[in-house]
Amino acid sequence: MKVSIIGATGYAGAELLRILHRHPEAEVVHITSESHTGERLSDLYPHLRGIYDMELESMKDIDRIGADSDFVFIGLPHGHAMEVGRALENMPTRIIDLGADYRFSDTNVYEEWYHVPHTHKGAARVYGLAELYREEIKTAKIIGNAGCFTTASILALAPLAKHHLIDVNTILVDAKSGVSGAGRSPKQGNHFPELYDSFKAYNVAHHRHTPEIEQAIEDLSGEKTVLNFTPHLVPMSRGILSTCYASLKPDITADMVDAAFGKMYANEYFIRLLGRNGYPATKDVRGSNFCDIAWHIDERTGRVIVLSVIDNLVKGAAGQAVQNFNIACGFDEKTGLDDVPMYP
Amino acid sequence: MKVSIIGATGYAGAELLRILHRHPEAEVVHITSESHTGERLSDLYPHLRGIYDMELESMKDIDRIGADSDFVFIGLPHGHAMEVGRALENMPTRIIDLGADYRFSDTNVYEEWYHVPHTHKGAARVYGLAELYREEIKTAKIIGNAGCFTTASILALAPLAKHHLIDVNTILVDAKSGVSGAGRSPKQGNHFPELYDSFKAYNVAHHRHTPEIEQAIEDLSGEKTVLNFTPHLVPMSRGILSTCYASLKPDITADMVDAAFGKMYANEYFIRLLGRNGYPATKDVRGSNFCDIAWHIDERTGRVIVLSVIDNLVKGAAGQAVQNFNIACGFDEKTGLDDVPMYP
Amino acid sequence: MKVSIIGATGYAGAELLRILHRHPEAEVVHITSESHTGERLSDLYPHLRGIYDMELESMKDIDRIGADSDFVFIGLPHGHAMEVGRALENMPTRIIDLGADYRFSDTNVYEEWYHVPHTHKGAARVYGLAELYREEIKTAKIIGNAGCFTTASILALAPLAKHHLIDVNTILVDAKSGVSGAGRSPKQGNHFPELYDSFKAYNVAHHRHTPEIEQAIEDLSGEKTVLNFTPHLVPMSRGILSTCYASLKPDITADMVDAAFGKMYANEYFIRLLGRNGYPATKDVRGSNFCDIAWHIDERTGRVIVLSVIDNLVKGAAGQAVQNFNIACGFDEKTGLDDVPMYP
Amino acid sequence: MKVSIIGATGYAGAELLRILHRHPEAEVVHITSESHTGERLSDLYPHLRGIYDMELESMKDIDRIGADSDFVFIGLPHGHAMEVGRALENMPTRIIDLGADYRFSDTNVYEEWYHVPHTHKGAARVYGLAELYREEIKTAKIIGNAGCFTTASILALAPLAKHHLIDVNTILVDAKSGVSGAGRSPKQGNHFPELYDSFKAYNVAHHRHTPEIEQAIEDLSGEKTVLNFTPHLVPMSRGILSTCYASLKPDITADMVDAAFGKMYANEYFIRLLGRNGYPATKDVRGSNFCDIAWHIDERTGRVIVLSVIDNLVKGAAGQAVQNFNIACGFDEKTGLDDVPMYP
Repeated sequence: MKVSIIGATGYAGAELLRILHRHPEAEVVHITSESHTGERLSDLYPHLRGIYDMELESMKDIDRIGADSDFVFIGLPHGHAMEVGRALENMPTRIIDLGADYRFSDTNVYEEWYHVPHTHKGAARVYGLAELYREEIKTAKIIGNAGCFTTASILALAPLAKHHLIDVNTILVDAKSGVSGAGRSPKQGNHFPELYDSFKAYNVAHHRHTPEIEQAIEDLSGEKTVLNFTPHLVPMSRGILSTCYASLKPDITADMVDAAFGKMYANEYFIRLLGRNGYPATKDVRGSNFCDIAWHIDERTGRVIVLSVIDNLVKGAAGQAVQNFNIACGFDEKTGLDDVPMYP
Repeated sequence: MKVSIIGATGYAGAELLRILHRHPEAEVVHITSESHTGERLSDLYPHLRGIYDMELESMKDIDRIGADSDFVFIGLPHGHAMEVGRALENMPTRIIDLGADYRFSDTNVYEEWYHVPHTHKGAARVYGLAELYREEIKTAKIIGNAGCFTTASILALAPLAKHHLIDVNTILVDAKSGVSGAGRSPKQGNHFPELYDSFKAYNVAHHRHTPEIEQAIEDLSGEKTVLNFTPHLVPMSRGILSTCYASLKPDITADMVDAAFGKMYANEYFIRLLGRNGYPATKDVRGSNFCDIAWHIDERTGRVIVLSVIDNLVKGAAGQAVQNFNIACGFDEKTGLDDVPMYP
Repeated sequence: MKVSIIGATGYAGAELLRILHRHPEAEVVHITSESHTGERLSDLYPHLRGIYDMELESMKDIDRIGADSDFVFIGLPHGHAMEVGRALENMPTRIIDLGADYRFSDTNVYEEWYHVPHTHKGAARVYGLAELYREEIKTAKIIGNAGCFTTASILALAPLAKHHLIDVNTILVDAKSGVSGAGRSPKQGNHFPELYDSFKAYNVAHHRHTPEIEQAIEDLSGEKTVLNFTPHLVPMSRGILSTCYASLKPDITADMVDAAFGKMYANEYFIRLLGRNGYPATKDVRGSNFCDIAWHIDERTGRVIVLSVIDNLVKGAAGQAVQNFNIACGFDEKTGLDDVPMYP
Repeated sequence: MKVSIIGATGYAGAELLRILHRHPEAEVVHITSESHTGERLSDLYPHLRGIYDMELESMKDIDRIGADSDFVFIGLPHGHAMEVGRALENMPTRIIDLGADYRFSDTNVYEEWYHVPHTHKGAARVYGLAELYREEIKTAKIIGNAGCFTTASILALAPLAKHHLIDVNTILVDAKSGVSGAGRSPKQGNHFPELYDSFKAYNVAHHRHTPEIEQAIEDLSGEKTVLNFTPHLVPMSRGILSTCYASLKPDITADMVDAAFGKMYANEYFIRLLGRNGYPATKDVRGSNFCDIAWHIDERTGRVIVLSVIDNLVKGAAGQAVQNFNIACGFDEKTGLDDVPMYP
């Protein structure tokens, strides 16, 4: 399959190229960047020297890029993927957007949280969280790849929501991410000495991944869901850990919780269940597409606490995109993703 | 005042010596370690070379140490401070225990969570969280210095609990600590390459700081409290951030929340209020006795989210001990603690 | 090819398994550990869960392991590989030792620096630095895989030594390594809080990689070489940077230096030349078998400064072992190693 | 003494304020910043909240600031302190410049390395490295505070140069610094994810601290000196380690080396000698004005290797400035600097 990456110079774009390099069925034909058009990618990312020395193009000629490509991956800031989506609407080219533009079935929710008008409302799209929407992904024109925090959080909560074991309105997600999640542009707040040996929260009560988690929980549970989501910045490069809390419904036992996870994920290669009372660490999945999950039940408070970890750039972005690509193409889902995490 | 440190070779002991070095009213007369008796402290801690080259003694001769000392700080593992407490019972020497032995007014709670019998049940002790128990600290024989997570968490929640703004049984504390909180003994799990670029939770639903937080919330609110406390390990040396959640009671407004914090902490030097919607970072208090606090209100869920940060070794251990010492001696509370945080 | 790993529980062993997982021509048949015999590898290394759940065996039955294996990789501490080497002497099994036992052509040098008797003096062995000893590796019975610091340092200096551009007795190697180079066993000095935000040297003038570098420089230059090697510990997980200094011989020009690097490495896939005045960073090669090299000429002092970086666990250990394995088997040298570095 | 800080918003300025806060003899009367005039310092540095909430002024009114101040500390980029120096030339105000403008006795050297004209050539200045130029500092009008790398390197080499134990033209300094040395402005290269778990060199053969070290060695040895200086960036916040190499002159013994260090530094409070074969770590001096030094002699190569560590922001900048201030004012040199390093 011929694939192109629109907006290839962010961390997710670079990670996508890392993964595609090993993918036997994908050939990268175009990579674009508006701010670096004409530069060689390996001049921006010296780790790619000798591997991806190709030149960055402009996306202005999107028609030609689309015509050359079976699949287009989009790594643009939100609001910009819609333009690409519309431009390629009548081509056979399929799209995987790593941003937020195609994640919401209700575009009003998108507009409310992202503060931009949605200009591609009728798009034939699906939410790109493979374990939950595999069937729809197979044939979708546009796949709105799930966000990083949301992937970790939804996968942690899905069995509980689907099997109605928790009161969905008691859900509270306290999530922690490495700094690569904030992108590659240098900012005062992400300057090395400012973050090193420091820890903080950000976007409390307002992070845009909140409605994305709510949408999935509603889909799974059939119940209107309003929840708390709090992201934190960990002084490390990669990795997300989501600590998810919810009150168990009356008479729900630990065995029922165990069974729900087992039933939902027993055959999912990328979900590794550590079981009840386990402790996933982000390093255990670093560089891989795995999501490791464990859960704890606090008898004193009646809450279940689910811990999930992913690599934010892999299962939280580029790996998930390739997993979706594999599903959409009918390839083995592990193609190009069958990696051992990099430890230590 | 002549002071001694029983169990001086842990991180909290070393930090105590760092602080006492600048304290104009304290003279360190004995330091002890059973495993390093006879060694020079600066051989164990080269950063102390030329400053604290004194020899470590054994605590076997506790009577003599007690007789020489106006105050004894104890840095022993839980279960061992009680022996010291009993040994010094009839001396005028006062005690500040940095461990858990004297933190609980109900020793049954201690026994239930620490799995050792309490052998000094009738001790004249007070909980050593200066901002809440200042009056009692002034005259206490034994001060059970508050724990690190608990200090950050209780200070965050105290105004809300005291002013009955929250439903105390909805409290959920998701806390994060640097690795110095785990002590100085090397363990597989704290080996540098294992933790670097990694994040994980531990002791979910079973951490011993849980009942300590509950005790304080009950004291403040007058209501029986059962809550969730989840600690996480951050790949950094120092610092704790507590993210505390609770549901606001009906009709509680943001202004009422603001007022509660202002009223309680306006005159507390070591509490710095960043106000509503602020973002404290652990680095902003590193090396100091400050506790920075901010709060957020999520209108969608009706929850208040309080963020608090401390340096776990200062306000969470040695600094708080010196603050208690100052109160107990009638000194200015800032004596020896009037430091600018070390940034960056 | 059937391969086994004797001493599989160190970081190099785990990394070897990570790489072999992608190797289409290698099947891991036995893994051993004396201290963890009978345990599952994934219980020691949770990141391997679902990938390598096999049991660790004892190496006591080395005959059977040898009989089952075309190749045996050894990850034992120095002094122990010789036992395996002798035990398999008369089997067709070939050996790649990741330790020091088979690195020295003069076993007296080994005994002098390692303080143990060499008990396998006549072994048919070759030094396993692929770029320099490729021909001999093809047919060697035993390959003494080059050390981590030495790989980075020798590759940096080889063109200069081989082409007689430098005075070999002015060579000075100032090297820096991430902490994974110190192994997986927890020690006080490698305890997370002790190393974090800290930097130090170790084994000055006595590190065992010194004679290994000297041996290679002598081989290349034909001149007796005595040099300085100073290792330092960087507060990070992976990566080595070697800063190598030497005085240029009279009349040696910058162009001649450039040409020497170009000539020697133009066709080496795993050596990436950043050219004169470049700045390699360890992160640019992390997780890969690349060695990135740049050089600078200081006209004021007449010295050339060569900078080289590798991932100590890949090109400095497991990756190099697989590269040697590929050469020894006649496979494409990149097999299983054709990875994009993991950035950021 | 009334002191002002011109250019107070860099890391060195903030550190200076941290130290001055504890200085019983200094009162900060003005702080300036051209880019943040009118803002509160604690809005730029939240760790200063409640301690330094004063407003930043413009340095345009330097006459008034000078008239108000007994001492002016300058934290401006090189080239700008000279303007302040000239403006205050005829006032009694004394100056400590933390930048390079007043470090060179030969302003031609300055112009050659800094590529700006020196506009204050006849200034009455002294090089502000207290241990070497104490007498001159006592009465100097302008003190050109020594640079960070240079302080660590000169103090390491001074006894050897002064006592003619080494061939000064064999000196080679391989230095490593934490990222705070690169300043507070965010840049791509210092963006957190780019540096984390990475190590690299920079400015090889061209760093401006080179001639500063040479100047001091020439002063001490009386011999023209040309040397190599190579800086590296360590993924940590604070700390510099200098690894200094030189060939011992014939017949110089280890005892003579030991004696030279002892003689020169026996009475220097801020120099802590770890002796021959010691290993200083940057963390052992973090937050303090100490310089820890150890040395090794390699009998094989005839080289001495000296290791020295400082906190780049304290002994390498603000602490040294206060030490110089104390000397200039006739205060005890330790005033405000008598701190225990912050460990861990």
